[in-house]
Amino acid sequence: MIEIERKFLVTSDAFKSESFSNKTIKQGYLSSVPERTVRVRTKGDEAYLTIKGASNETGLSRFEWEKEISINEAESLLMLCESGIIDKVRYEVKLGDHTFEIDEFFGANSGLILAEVELKFEEEEFQKPSWLGLEVTNDYRYYNAYLNLHPFTKWESR
Amino acid sequence: MIEIERKFLVTSDAFKSESFSNKTIKQGYLSSVPERTVRVRTKGDEAYLTIKGASNETGLSRFEWEKEISINEAESLLMLCESGIIDKVRYEVKLGDHTFEIDEFFGANSGLILAEVELKFEEEEFQKPSWLGLEVTNDYRYYNAYLNLHPFTKWESR
Repeated sequence: MIEIERKFLVTSDAFKSESFSNKTIKQGYLSSVPERTVRVRTKGDEAYLTIKGASNETGLSRFEWEKEISINEAESLLMLCESGIIDKVRYEVKLGDHTFEIDEFFGANSGLILAEVELKFEEEEFQKPSWLGLEVTNDYRYYNAYLNLHPFTKWESR
Repeated sequence: MIEIERKFLVTSDAFKSESFSNKTIKQGYLSSVPERTVRVRTKGDEAYLTIKGASNETGLSRFEWEKEISINEAESLLMLCESGIIDKVRYEVKLGDHTFEIDEFFGANSGLILAEVELKFEEEEFQKPSWLGLEVTNDYRYYNAYLNLHPFTKWESR
């Protein structure tokens, strides 16, 4: 199945009172080489080690291996990771048929808030919450890989 | 505790009949960056994922995290690894107070056989088996990292 995700800036923090869940996420990479990424992530009180291979030519399938590890193990492994640890709180908001994931970043990306909605097909309609701003789906500056190297607090014109 | 290991070439395959155990080892690296190595290894019917940090200044302590994984998982992960998968059989031979580990390499390092003995202190005496050849303890060409980049079958003068 193809994952279609559209990504937006967020114009206010009204999403917080509308959310039904929020979890702190910290993540880093032991390897960010696209052919073999090794990611450490804590999410709430759970933690995972995730290894992914390169996308194949069609972009549809990608080898993925994930193992739950303890929070303590994850915290030790995060200390080994490449620079650019992501620290954010993920809120979830349900509106109509869709669930929005809103990430409020801290640390080096403090000030950045991004919302994502997953669609079944590219042109699927969805109800827009009041706090949804500019679409940035294809803006490479909001990719994790770019944010790692160029954290939001260091952007010149924002 | 400091690990003192001395490494030797091997002059015959007489060690095989003297060994009390042998296990096939396959290993590869998802990351070989010294600050955060991620190693996949199968050893006999067991498999492990091992993550190590950099050695500290004294060289004595190094963060290490290891998790047993299934052979199937390891084989999938080995396919993602950097080039230079090590494929060897490790024999163990007991002689006097010491155990020798002898690695017979295959694949790109075919023809190479190395023996290692672990000592309690640098000048500790040990009984030398008949098949023990030239000492190569400090010869960088026999380090794993060098063999990955320059496999034994490609050496010019041997």
